[in-house]
Amino acid sequence: MRAGPSQEEIRRQNLGALLRYVHIHGATSRAELTTSLGLNRSTIGALTAELAAAGLISERAPRETGRAGRPSLVVRPESSRVFAYAYSIEVDRLRAARIGLGGVVLDRRQADRPPGLLAEDSLPLLAGFVKEMHQSVADGSVYVGSGVAVCGRLRRPDGAVHIRPDSGWAGNGEMDKPLGEALGEILPSVRPILVSNAADASAVAEHARGAANGYDDVIYLHRDVGIDAGIIVGGRRLTGQGGYAGEVGHMVVHPGGRPCGCGSHGCWETEIDEYALLHAAGQGDAIGRDAALRIVEAAARGDANAQAAIRQIGDWLGFGVANLVNIFNPGVVIFGGTLRDVYLAAAARVRSRLNSLALPASREQVRLRTPQLGEDAALIGAAELAFEHLLADPLDAG
Amino acid sequence: MRAGPSQEEIRRQNLGALLRYVHIHGATSRAELTTSLGLNRSTIGALTAELAAAGLISERAPRETGRAGRPSLVVRPESSRVFAYAYSIEVDRLRAARIGLGGVVLDRRQADRPPGLLAEDSLPLLAGFVKEMHQSVADGSVYVGSGVAVCGRLRRPDGAVHIRPDSGWAGNGEMDKPLGEALGEILPSVRPILVSNAADASAVAEHARGAANGYDDVIYLHRDVGIDAGIIVGGRRLTGQGGYAGEVGHMVVHPGGRPCGCGSHGCWETEIDEYALLHAAGQGDAIGRDAALRIVEAAARGDANAQAAIRQIGDWLGFGVANLVNIFNPGVVIFGGTLRDVYLAAAARVRSRLNSLALPASREQVRLRTPQLGEDAALIGAAELAFEHLLADPLDAG
Repeated sequence: MRAGPSQEEIRRQNLGALLRYVHIHGATSRAELTTSLGLNRSTIGALTAELAAAGLISERAPRETGRAGRPSLVVRPESSRVFAYAYSIEVDRLRAARIGLGGVVLDRRQADRPPGLLAEDSLPLLAGFVKEMHQSVADGSVYVGSGVAVCGRLRRPDGAVHIRPDSGWAGNGEMDKPLGEALGEILPSVRPILVSNAADASAVAEHARGAANGYDDVIYLHRDVGIDAGIIVGGRRLTGQGGYAGEVGHMVVHPGGRPCGCGSHGCWETEIDEYALLHAAGQGDAIGRDAALRIVEAAARGDANAQAAIRQIGDWLGFGVANLVNIFNPGVVIFGGTLRDVYLAAAARVRSRLNSLALPASREQVRLRTPQLGEDAALIGAAELAFEHLLADPLDAG
Repeated sequence: MRAGPSQEEIRRQNLGALLRYVHIHGATSRAELTTSLGLNRSTIGALTAELAAAGLISERAPRETGRAGRPSLVVRPESSRVFAYAYSIEVDRLRAARIGLGGVVLDRRQADRPPGLLAEDSLPLLAGFVKEMHQSVADGSVYVGSGVAVCGRLRRPDGAVHIRPDSGWAGNGEMDKPLGEALGEILPSVRPILVSNAADASAVAEHARGAANGYDDVIYLHRDVGIDAGIIVGGRRLTGQGGYAGEVGHMVVHPGGRPCGCGSHGCWETEIDEYALLHAAGQGDAIGRDAALRIVEAAARGDANAQAAIRQIGDWLGFGVANLVNIFNPGVVIFGGTLRDVYLAAAARVRSRLNSLALPASREQVRLRTPQLGEDAALIGAAELAFEHLLADPLDAG
């Protein structure tokens, strides 16, 4: 219902479109920018001059092409100079990275997160990483912002994210502690800090520059604490009315199934999580990611018990994917976190269930994939959140 | 990634924004348009002059306000002059209406659709309705286009909709018959004809001017042939990569449950459709909407068997709604078609299931509603599809 933009808004849109293009595609000739953005050559020249003056891009002549005529200048994002900090808070580890425009990881740090470590005690670790990395930042660099990807279901469209007890954070009463604010208090120099859950951040990253690139409808399944989905529909993140969409792990697939931490029974995540896998393999006493991965390895070695367990989990995995495919008709489903290994071990079962349970029209185009960015997806996605402000209005934020 | 619009595109956007505003909100003062659209008074004056010259709106002075000063002119959509045709093809009836800009039903026709009536034989009936209604169209009227809402799962983003055998159309081999094209051959004068399924059309109508107005995230459940959903996320229709999203009826909720026509077992629609209700009430031999509604009525009269059947269906209805609420975190869920009556009879069971199965954060904001536009939702939504072209570029299409 909003009216059209002003001339000044158009200029900003054009600057943002150009910067976004090289942020996603990397070095690009002016000629290609002219074609891809649908702007004339003089406009492209004016825009690149402004962005170069702000230190966001650089231009140089391409290598000798051997062809006659003046070659088109090549525009590059200033990846080593313009950067964001990205943090990933996971069940069992903490990571931080310095990521340059264009999605280039310039520096990184990682530490184990002891079970039950309190939020308050995790944040100083991340702050320490940032201070360390900041020492090697060259003079004249441009800091854009910070993004955090955090395990568990904590999402608000306005970024005022609340920590939930089942996110893997130890302790109670932290529900109302805004994570971005808490980190900002320790690291006042790196504000603003945008917060997302790990599934959403990973979906954004794979969509921008990974296995979901070129698809408008994407489901990124992430298993860390429980099962979350980062969902992209029509090219945009699904957030829901209150910011809590994507709780696919609590889709009930097995009425009367095992009790779930949410109070329900037979939730999808109770049928496919690490505990379900260990239980199916007769190792109900074991816990954790490593124990689950040992079962995947045992199945690969031919252990019959482990193979039966993988088949069972694969069936339930395919069952839930079929429901999501019927509902969303996605172009691609990505299996992230530790779901990646279970999917790879049980891909045939998953596909078979999908084929028998989903409607042909809904499933015929869908690709099943693992993350192309691997474990970096959450970090790169967190950085994308931080870059978003710059890309929307390059000269205001730069 | 697209660059900003040109001056001419902005003018068209502004014309569209103004016309869309009065199409949705009805008569609006210039002063309110200035505020709502964020444009200055002279721009609003120029835009209304252009739209009035094209016969799309009219302007007149408001009634005496009793206040000093010149009152702001009131802008109205030319509802009786600018119109679309809308068609609704349902399992057991055919409807057509002439609908004016602003969503006003100007004229309507309806006939029963005999079971098994072929597509070819349904379309001449609709064409006859249009010819009849067209006789009373005043000279100088503006015909905008036609929209069809059709039962069943037939959707393509490009409007080249294919008829599916389980849509209630009799016969086989009609899968590849584009409905809009077939109707256009009979009624060449009313092209273009846009086609949507009934759930999508109803969701669009309730979102624009009904129970979902003001919500960005909407699930409209429609039962006619099977269960479809028209889903709106972030204010836009969910279509999916290939145009087949919304097949919530084939979400499996009861592994090992009753066989479904899709080849699977325990699909949501097999647990909540008319047959399930009749079966639960011990009337497995009866069929059809009327028989199902008699059970709803018997339950209201206190019939214990019928009440038990309603409870059972209500539980499964709430079960599936809980899954969708966890996945989408919608602002509102609307129960349309014959689901309306089942929902009203079992509302407490549905809400109770929702409360026990959906996460608090996902469900706390959700409203459960019946269609505010009643049975007209599909027709009005079909007309909205036809108006969309005009609203996107009023002077090109007008």
